[in-house]
Amino acid sequence: MDQAETDALWAVAESVAEAARRETLKYFRSRELRTETKSADFDPVTVADRAAEDAMRRVLAERRPQDAVLGEERINTSGTSGLTWVLDPIDGTRGYISGTPTWGVLIALSDETGPRLGLIDQPYIGERFMGGLGRASVSGPLGETRLGVRATTVLAEATLFTTFPEVGTEEEGAAFRRVASNTKLTRYGCDCYAYALLAAGQIDLVIEAGLAPYDIHAPIAVVEAAGGIVTDWTGAPAHGGGQVVAAATSELHAAAMALLAP
Amino acid sequence: MDQAETDALWAVAESVAEAARRETLKYFRSRELRTETKSADFDPVTVADRAAEDAMRRVLAERRPQDAVLGEERINTSGTSGLTWVLDPIDGTRGYISGTPTWGVLIALSDETGPRLGLIDQPYIGERFMGGLGRASVSGPLGETRLGVRATTVLAEATLFTTFPEVGTEEEGAAFRRVASNTKLTRYGCDCYAYALLAAGQIDLVIEAGLAPYDIHAPIAVVEAAGGIVTDWTGAPAHGGGQVVAAATSELHAAAMALLAP
Repeated sequence: MDQAETDALWAVAESVAEAARRETLKYFRSRELRTETKSADFDPVTVADRAAEDAMRRVLAERRPQDAVLGEERINTSGTSGLTWVLDPIDGTRGYISGTPTWGVLIALSDETGPRLGLIDQPYIGERFMGGLGRASVSGPLGETRLGVRATTVLAEATLFTTFPEVGTEEEGAAFRRVASNTKLTRYGCDCYAYALLAAGQIDLVIEAGLAPYDIHAPIAVVEAAGGIVTDWTGAPAHGGGQVVAAATSELHAAAMALLAP
Repeated sequence: MDQAETDALWAVAESVAEAARRETLKYFRSRELRTETKSADFDPVTVADRAAEDAMRRVLAERRPQDAVLGEERINTSGTSGLTWVLDPIDGTRGYISGTPTWGVLIALSDETGPRLGLIDQPYIGERFMGGLGRASVSGPLGETRLGVRATTVLAEATLFTTFPEVGTEEEGAAFRRVASNTKLTRYGCDCYAYALLAAGQIDLVIEAGLAPYDIHAPIAVVEAAGGIVTDWTGAPAHGGGQVVAAATSELHAAAMALLAP
């Protein structure tokens, strides 16, 4: 892929992000936000979620009709290019309906080997983390700066993030706590924003379970572009979803994996 | 206090917030951020914390020399007016050093009965929640809007926030979980930002323990101005710190207190 092609793909990715930003902000912190229940568990789907995915799909239908699209909310569409756009209009719906600024719009472009380009957008802050195809940067309130993981190699000096204290099943939760009890600091509640902070060199480790593919494609691209490592808990590629461990360094990644193993 | 006096006090409070915003943003997400350890537990104090409090105190020394100042980082100064500025330069230091956008600058003006005016500022987002002396508003990325709690009266429909899953001592943690297990949704990790979300009508309940007075004066003023209730776990005034329950409605407050009682 030459520079003109990668520039064109990034331009599409940013247009897709702009479309989602408009729709998600229309409803964010609105008092009229309606939620539905997807299943017996509390899993809110908002009007915004669907409006944002529809807006993203309209941009892709016009500018990249040759690519497939995999999104959280709508039926997958196939393509002819071998490339798939993987979309999560609102990652962290619970955070979104609670008004927190740590949900995000996830956009990835992937081939059969995994994500090539990824974007984590936080519309309320106006912040965009971008990685892949030669890019590793964040734009936001402090301007545009390069992404890069930090050099932490031992758990005792690491800051670990996850979304819920329970972290998946009971066994997965126990495995998580084996790692957490050996870190300097463990924090909760960030959804995709934790991967952005890892890529920005602010934290060292993210461990989650029970993810869907659209939850993790964009974070993989962003973290890898920043020099970090993302795999499942056995060290295999993580873009299929499920269990994920993302680390700033290979040493930290190995230390976490050793404690996550049953 | 007449309108001119309250306007003047709000102008001072906003100047104090601007001073803190500059200092805290100088160091936020800096790769060189140094932390010290206050005690055996991990309790980072940053260069930014002290620089911000010093900058806030300089504004107050010039514009309100007659008022006392109580801050987290420096020695208290006395006054002659019967009013005390209560300052926390960075509430949520752990969030700050992790790069999250949910820490805040807390500024309150209090008399012997408690806070009269409170301000929760999030410098990175550029967002300011203000309550007291006739004001209840937030300014930020979406412009300026009025604050107001929502009308949730039962735990089963409530969203509950706290900072750490442990919530203080073992007994306090158990009491918290009695409430949490009866809510619709429980989220972690927001520090003072949770009170801002409560005042903005986005969540319904905040429960914490082990707070210092400077952690809670500003949140009390903001939440009360928005129509909410803040007390300790027994229903007494909370501005002395310790255990805090903040609720959108009196019904929800009573329901939480009933489960928090030993």
